Amino acid sequence: MEPTVDLNADMGESFGPWVMGDDAALLDIVTSANIACGVHAGDWDVMAETMRRAVAGDVGIGAHPGFPDIQGFGRRRMILPHESLGNLVRYQVGAAQAMARAAGGEVRHVKLHGALSNMTSQDEAMARACYEAALSVAPDVIIMVLAGTKQQDAVRDLGCRVACEIFADRAYNDDATLVDRSQPGAVIHDAAKAGARMAEMVREGAIITESGKRIPTRIDTICLHGDTPTAVSIAGEVRRALTESGVRLKRFEGVPV
Amino acid sequence: MEPTVDLNADMGESFGPWVMGDDAALLDIVTSANIACGVHAGDWDVMAETMRRAVAGDVGIGAHPGFPDIQGFGRRRMILPHESLGNLVRYQVGAAQAMARAAGGEVRHVKLHGALSNMTSQDEAMARACYEAALSVAPDVIIMVLAGTKQQDAVRDLGCRVACEIFADRAYNDDATLVDRSQPGAVIHDAAKAGARMAEMVREGAIITESGKRIPTRIDTICLHGDTPTAVSIAGEVRRALTESGVRLKRFEGVPV
Amino acid sequence: MEPTVDLNADMGESFGPWVMGDDAALLDIVTSANIACGVHAGDWDVMAETMRRAVAGDVGIGAHPGFPDIQGFGRRRMILPHESLGNLVRYQVGAAQAMARAAGGEVRHVKLHGALSNMTSQDEAMARACYEAALSVAPDVIIMVLAGTKQQDAVRDLGCRVACEIFADRAYNDDATLVDRSQPGAVIHDAAKAGARMAEMVREGAIITESGKRIPTRIDTICLHGDTPTAVSIAGEVRRALTESGVRLKRFEGVPV
Amino acid sequence: MEPTVDLNADMGESFGPWVMGDDAALLDIVTSANIACGVHAGDWDVMAETMRRAVAGDVGIGAHPGFPDIQGFGRRRMILPHESLGNLVRYQVGAAQAMARAAGGEVRHVKLHGALSNMTSQDEAMARACYEAALSVAPDVIIMVLAGTKQQDAVRDLGCRVACEIFADRAYNDDATLVDRSQPGAVIHDAAKAGARMAEMVREGAIITESGKRIPTRIDTICLHGDTPTAVSIAGEVRRALTESGVRLKRFEGVPV
Repeated sequence: MEPTVDLNADMGESFGPWVMGDDAALLDIVTSANIACGVHAGDWDVMAETMRRAVAGDVGIGAHPGFPDIQGFGRRRMILPHESLGNLVRYQVGAAQAMARAAGGEVRHVKLHGALSNMTSQDEAMARACYEAALSVAPDVIIMVLAGTKQQDAVRDLGCRVACEIFADRAYNDDATLVDRSQPGAVIHDAAKAGARMAEMVREGAIITESGKRIPTRIDTICLHGDTPTAVSIAGEVRRALTESGVRLKRFEGVPV
Repeated sequence: MEPTVDLNADMGESFGPWVMGDDAALLDIVTSANIACGVHAGDWDVMAETMRRAVAGDVGIGAHPGFPDIQGFGRRRMILPHESLGNLVRYQVGAAQAMARAAGGEVRHVKLHGALSNMTSQDEAMARACYEAALSVAPDVIIMVLAGTKQQDAVRDLGCRVACEIFADRAYNDDATLVDRSQPGAVIHDAAKAGARMAEMVREGAIITESGKRIPTRIDTICLHGDTPTAVSIAGEVRRALTESGVRLKRFEGVPV
Repeated sequence: MEPTVDLNADMGESFGPWVMGDDAALLDIVTSANIACGVHAGDWDVMAETMRRAVAGDVGIGAHPGFPDIQGFGRRRMILPHESLGNLVRYQVGAAQAMARAAGGEVRHVKLHGALSNMTSQDEAMARACYEAALSVAPDVIIMVLAGTKQQDAVRDLGCRVACEIFADRAYNDDATLVDRSQPGAVIHDAAKAGARMAEMVREGAIITESGKRIPTRIDTICLHGDTPTAVSIAGEVRRALTESGVRLKRFEGVPV
Repeated sequence: MEPTVDLNADMGESFGPWVMGDDAALLDIVTSANIACGVHAGDWDVMAETMRRAVAGDVGIGAHPGFPDIQGFGRRRMILPHESLGNLVRYQVGAAQAMARAAGGEVRHVKLHGALSNMTSQDEAMARACYEAALSVAPDVIIMVLAGTKQQDAVRDLGCRVACEIFADRAYNDDATLVDRSQPGAVIHDAAKAGARMAEMVREGAIITESGKRIPTRIDTICLHGDTPTAVSIAGEVRRALTESGVRLKRFEGVPV
């Protein structure tokens, strides 16, 4: 059977007069868009426009909640009580649902952003608090998790729809964690190499680490970056390499883990 | 037939560490709560707590969207394109829907806040832009309008559910506008007088102006204030006066105008 | 005697992760920089970096206060009491003074931003409130005003140092107001034409209107835009045209009007 | 020689329409005020009013910088590079200097707020980054430090003016750290006891721990709280107990440690 995979990217990260990324170009590449919800980036106007474009391009809409910190772009860690984390996620998912509905679409998945993603990838209870909150307002939503992290552990008992994600441009250690950015080779800048590598991982159903080790992993979606012209060009290359190697691009179904 | 009326008040206007109003006391008095949506006041935690209490107290939940201006509390006028106004309202109503759902309730009505209310009470097209936006994400929601203003004109062609509102503590001119606050007698500080006056207006189905003129008006709900201890005490007095005079307190049904 | 003029541009308008304009390129062109103060754009890090660069490039530092509205970039009008306007300006000028001092420079001038500039160009009392506030914390600062507007009227009685500004890329009506952007020819996109026109105005000491009329005006500085690649290229052309026509570029001295 | 001590409290923590604390009452009690700088609390209007009152009451003005987090009131920890921390502090101190100058006063001391204070009390390099930044824009300012913490270590090599602070209402461990709030007796609610204890510590020049141990410490100022009616009453009691026991209230001089 033909292997399939979804391609996702963060989008709608402009704010007021400031533009970030080339959403129009990315929407031609990805099958799912993680759209900022106005709390770490994006605003109602940016959300409306991004969702309109996603609907027009038949790209799946995801809510992409983050920490309340516009200046820090949601990249600064915050310690919040789980109850408060849940409220933060609910608020953003709800706002995204309304904007998606008005654009003729719907919120199909939820992916956590920035420091909220980093922290939950290391803290299962925190991840669960966020995911339960999302499901409390959108019971059928697909939770996108970083494969091999505490995020994936967190969804196991939730019975919810799930999409497991790997990174197109990051090298993996033998324990499935990402190679630290400070190490040489941690970030893959060669688009052709990134594409070939992704095709191989998807076909094998495994993360292939720097040392060549195979870690069997469910791979539903590949995270692409689009915040620089180079990033968009790499994203396009990854897409091309995947399709040329016989991997079909298709939105994730979100079957439970 | 026994006359009925709803009592509404703004609530959930605390923010972060700052408390505003005595929501607990007000929830014992009103039948509907207009809950700030985190854009001019309130935050996700305040919204969650306020909605939880409203559900517990069987008080109708309303989304209370305002201009994006925390420091100014949504009281400073902003000129926004209608498309952007619509996005602003959709965002807030959507966030409120999620928070209400998580609290076991639902957003039953929408009432505009502060400068957004003032401007739309004078500008029918602007009011319509806001209301259409609210209805685009919450088609069954009841739109609460200031009786006798452009807000009421704006809902006429929308075919939506509507609640018409008068103020408990403000004197009216003969053209149904409010007496300017700079004028003596503009604000009614005497709770007993305010209560008796409201009871009379509800029974007669008319705004009674300062000069004694009757302007036949549909009256579905009375706006109470609760941001000071005095305000809460006046609110309680109005409630008592109404019930003692045989007016029954009951949530509005929201029949179209 | 050789005519001189200053060239100024808005700068430091990036915010958090979002970049705006090409400040490095502009700093090679202008003699004065209007630096955002963290209230409508800019933040402490952007301010620090922009001031460091301005000092290194020997470009005069100006504080560029605006309305408190990051998302709206200070372009949305706000009605504030004069006392509050004054506090708003003092706050921003003070913050800029500290950042400039730490960068080894000083705030040499103050120019109002966006809607605050638009409103004060039509309202002398409002302009005076802002300028008096700036002078209350920086008595020797040079106030930059839009030539021929209420801003210029407002500084007349203040006895302060002043720099009068015209626009490089905007056509003027016969009453010295700007041709409305909705009119053809309102914005001059031809860099060579803009440059030649500026050189002529500076040498003649007059605004030359669309109809060719001369309005004698003190011209101390020319406002350039730098928020697009085209704008930077036009700015460079204006500079070239001025120097080639014998106008010397030099920071304004700020003699009182 | 008669022992003297300063009394300080946080002030100016209202924001927009929200009031916090009873600044008027506190200003009659303290000799120094730590005034929020608009980044975690306070705004330009609140700062102006608070500084005006401080000048009128002959209370020393301090800048009270915090993390950029209004909703979290600067109580959430943020990890920032030291360069950025420095910019954050410079910005706030500069704004405070301007507001103080306009009020006819000056910024006499700097005290860090909330999580910024907590983190720097445990991290000497971080404390030094903040203090050096403050001194870079206000070379003569007095740095207020928590006695016995890394804050005090940080000022040792700076050669700056310093004021060492203890808490009126917190019990101390034998290593001079505060008893954790989760422990019984950590917070002293008995005003008379708090006052007597402070008088004893000031006269002995030592922190007296829960176990009765004396830790010789320079004590220049006592931190009072004023965010609740009870807190204000305790603050008044502490003042009374000190003066009755012969301790004179007087602003700190800020001699180097």
